[in-house]
Amino acid sequence: MEFSEVILKRRSVRRFTQKKIPKEVLMKAFEEAILAPNSSNTQTWRFYWVNSHEKKENLVAFCLNQSAARTCSDLIVCVASPKSWKISQPELIKYTEEIVAPSAVVNYYKKLVPMMYQWGPLNSWGLLKKILFTCLGIFKPVPRSPGFRSEVQEVAIKSSALACENFVLSLTNQGFASCMMEGFDEARVKKLLKLNCSDRVVMVIAAGEEAQDGTWGPRFRIKLSQVVHEV
Amino acid sequence: MEFSEVILKRRSVRRFTQKKIPKEVLMKAFEEAILAPNSSNTQTWRFYWVNSHEKKENLVAFCLNQSAARTCSDLIVCVASPKSWKISQPELIKYTEEIVAPSAVVNYYKKLVPMMYQWGPLNSWGLLKKILFTCLGIFKPVPRSPGFRSEVQEVAIKSSALACENFVLSLTNQGFASCMMEGFDEARVKKLLKLNCSDRVVMVIAAGEEAQDGTWGPRFRIKLSQVVHEV
Repeated sequence: MEFSEVILKRRSVRRFTQKKIPKEVLMKAFEEAILAPNSSNTQTWRFYWVNSHEKKENLVAFCLNQSAARTCSDLIVCVASPKSWKISQPELIKYTEEIVAPSAVVNYYKKLVPMMYQWGPLNSWGLLKKILFTCLGIFKPVPRSPGFRSEVQEVAIKSSALACENFVLSLTNQGFASCMMEGFDEARVKKLLKLNCSDRVVMVIAAGEEAQDGTWGPRFRIKLSQVVHEV
Repeated sequence: MEFSEVILKRRSVRRFTQKKIPKEVLMKAFEEAILAPNSSNTQTWRFYWVNSHEKKENLVAFCLNQSAARTCSDLIVCVASPKSWKISQPELIKYTEEIVAPSAVVNYYKKLVPMMYQWGPLNSWGLLKKILFTCLGIFKPVPRSPGFRSEVQEVAIKSSALACENFVLSLTNQGFASCMMEGFDEARVKKLLKLNCSDRVVMVIAAGEEAQDGTWGPRFRIKLSQVVHEV
């Protein structure tokens, strides 16, 4: 499909038919999801495709039994995993050295990424970063974040959301529909998926074929002039 | 362009030519940005298209003088504005009543949205929500968030990121390039744009025509099997 057509066609669908999504469709959507931009290319997004019958039943309940979760073909949990920069970083260093990237780039991944994406025991390193940048910031522009764990999580959540948008658009392009859900019990979902303490559940995506009554009306947006300001 | 072509073509470009982006291209990108899904359709995203010469110079400095900001044609600041649900909510109620939506939907916007997206003086209402849901959560699945101000901000940041992804993809589809920047001085950007205290700067997007040395190598991603888990 043409790009703008996909953008227009994607809706948050709350009711799906019983048709299963072929595995290759989902895999293509995952492949297109991870082509999204992300913070320092740390790729701290993770996707849990919940296929076990028992886990899926639990997940529907943890999504508060909403109709999108109940009727969909597949449930995908997107997780922001701030500590997973440790997996991508050595591979990034190897890659940048192989392609003979500028030394500033290699150093960025070697030295700056670990400084930025760690917070230390009890946020101690985060606090030190905060104090340092707040003091320096009196005199000149400085990056104010990420310092504390919650700020590193925020960065990972943001990148993961970008990938989720690619994911749902890719499903639309392949003839399937989706619903991003934020109404869920995060504590229970984390336990179900045995996530790390610092991981965050970004959203649960319900995916499937749209049923006839998939949406309850045409899309509504406030005026563009209410959200875009020229300054 | 075909959807998958756009996804493949989009890269984070760090150097742009001097060509200006036509206004209609940017406006189409904004229009496609706000077709992204968002939390309870509250549309708490805001875009500041920084056009004044002086403000732009300041913004480049606040983006730590990185080359994408220095060389681009246009700088767009995406802001998550958690209090702006108050603008969309009355319009949403009017709209759902007009199209005779199910009463549960109308009530959702009338009653649940204000409960969810407020945090009260000194986070008092947020704390009450937290206590209530933590207690209820012992017995059954409950939504754990948003309670506190930071959690409402997080929801707005997530939705804004979705719109930003549409925005940069739309620019690619129209023959232009972009770079999402998270390295900026948030305190100074907030002051420059006279933002509310509770507003958060999600990212600054540099946009323009890609220069020949726009990227420093091919795209790198870790293996799909490292980020997608079937459970």
